[in-house]
Amino acid sequence: MTTGLVPTMGALHDGHRALLRAARAENDRVVMSLFVNPAQFGPAEDFDRYPRDEQRDRDIAGQEGVDEVYAPSVEEMYPPGFATHVVSDLGGRLEGDARPGHFEGVATVVLKLFLRVAPDRAYFGQKDAQQLAVIRRMVRDLDVPVEVRSVPTQREPDGLALSSRNAYLNAEERGRAASLHRALVARDASLIEGDVEYFESVDPDTFEPAPVEAGALLVAAARFGNTRLIDNVMLEDV
Amino acid sequence: MTTGLVPTMGALHDGHRALLRAARAENDRVVMSLFVNPAQFGPAEDFDRYPRDEQRDRDIAGQEGVDEVYAPSVEEMYPPGFATHVVSDLGGRLEGDARPGHFEGVATVVLKLFLRVAPDRAYFGQKDAQQLAVIRRMVRDLDVPVEVRSVPTQREPDGLALSSRNAYLNAEERGRAASLHRALVARDASLIEGDVEYFESVDPDTFEPAPVEAGALLVAAARFGNTRLIDNVMLEDV
Repeated sequence: MTTGLVPTMGALHDGHRALLRAARAENDRVVMSLFVNPAQFGPAEDFDRYPRDEQRDRDIAGQEGVDEVYAPSVEEMYPPGFATHVVSDLGGRLEGDARPGHFEGVATVVLKLFLRVAPDRAYFGQKDAQQLAVIRRMVRDLDVPVEVRSVPTQREPDGLALSSRNAYLNAEERGRAASLHRALVARDASLIEGDVEYFESVDPDTFEPAPVEAGALLVAAARFGNTRLIDNVMLEDV
Repeated sequence: MTTGLVPTMGALHDGHRALLRAARAENDRVVMSLFVNPAQFGPAEDFDRYPRDEQRDRDIAGQEGVDEVYAPSVEEMYPPGFATHVVSDLGGRLEGDARPGHFEGVATVVLKLFLRVAPDRAYFGQKDAQQLAVIRRMVRDLDVPVEVRSVPTQREPDGLALSSRNAYLNAEERGRAASLHRALVARDASLIEGDVEYFESVDPDTFEPAPVEAGALLVAAARFGNTRLIDNVMLEDV
């Protein structure tokens, strides 16, 4: 009997459906966690307004054949006196630089979910590539008995990566947001029709800077209005 | 079938024997780990000269009915690119203040041992009281499925707590070292015949300062020559 875990913060979209389908195809039992993790949001970030619709999320989980939705409360995950944190040397640059404490919050809650649910496999989207690297490294470093599986980024027809935060974009911003993926494919940051935070070629395992060549990952973050989006593409031979 | 784990850095003494006997009495299978963990020593500390005698340690393990000695190499525990660390808010004061990074090294290696050996119970000495608090809190915070058991400090006839580092003391220092326990029992730091680093009443769970009253833990650290020793007593009603 194998268990597949899909950790989510809810606000499910077709990217999550791809994770759930991968888990469903590879395991006897599928658990989806639903937890908007306060520890991975900065004080000035969007924890309070992060989209929440638990009934809709549960409906989607049902459609995708999830056996159990695990939706703990904040108090249950972080009881009074909570004092232990998982930190990653891979979490200091790029997203970690833009969002101090973010990966500490991610790594800590994901380890807790792994130890509570005890899955055989866990599923993460390639869209959050640095998160994936942090979690893969954590699992190896701490000898967590879980296989980490990644699932390709799901995209809108114009290339925009699916993200729960796309819901924040107005029509004009939504139009410009597709430029993030176009710029990554063209390897040209100047094509981004927004405020670029970073645009960098990295080693996909260590997230250290890497030459722009096959096997490297091109990662970018940009703001469109007040909405911050990230995306990445793996570089192939030209 | 239950498994009891006794994590050690070797250099076994009768304090370790008490841990092994507790584990033997309560479990079907006993694993003793033997790993001098470089991550919990500071750069100026005694990692290189820490006493090592693996054959003697294995003999003692055999005498105490240990089923398996788990003695990983440093390379096996910390492979190249190791990047994940467990930190505790309880590890910043007292021992953590005197030994920066110490409890991060302890918590990380203990979590790895817990995840590798997957014991039902793990045994630690009350002598290292702050370590015990850090580990208990880590197990609760991260939902690690292990029961942490503590075993009373073993002492020489004059009260000196057993410690592998007692081997560093010369005869004159050894004579003075017993004053550490006498001072704790008398609640009087001025009785310590060495250089006092701290002498403080704390809450045994949080290690925050606490009134000198029943239920608090009186903890102390002092140097005798070049050797730094720690000890503690639980305060009872007078």
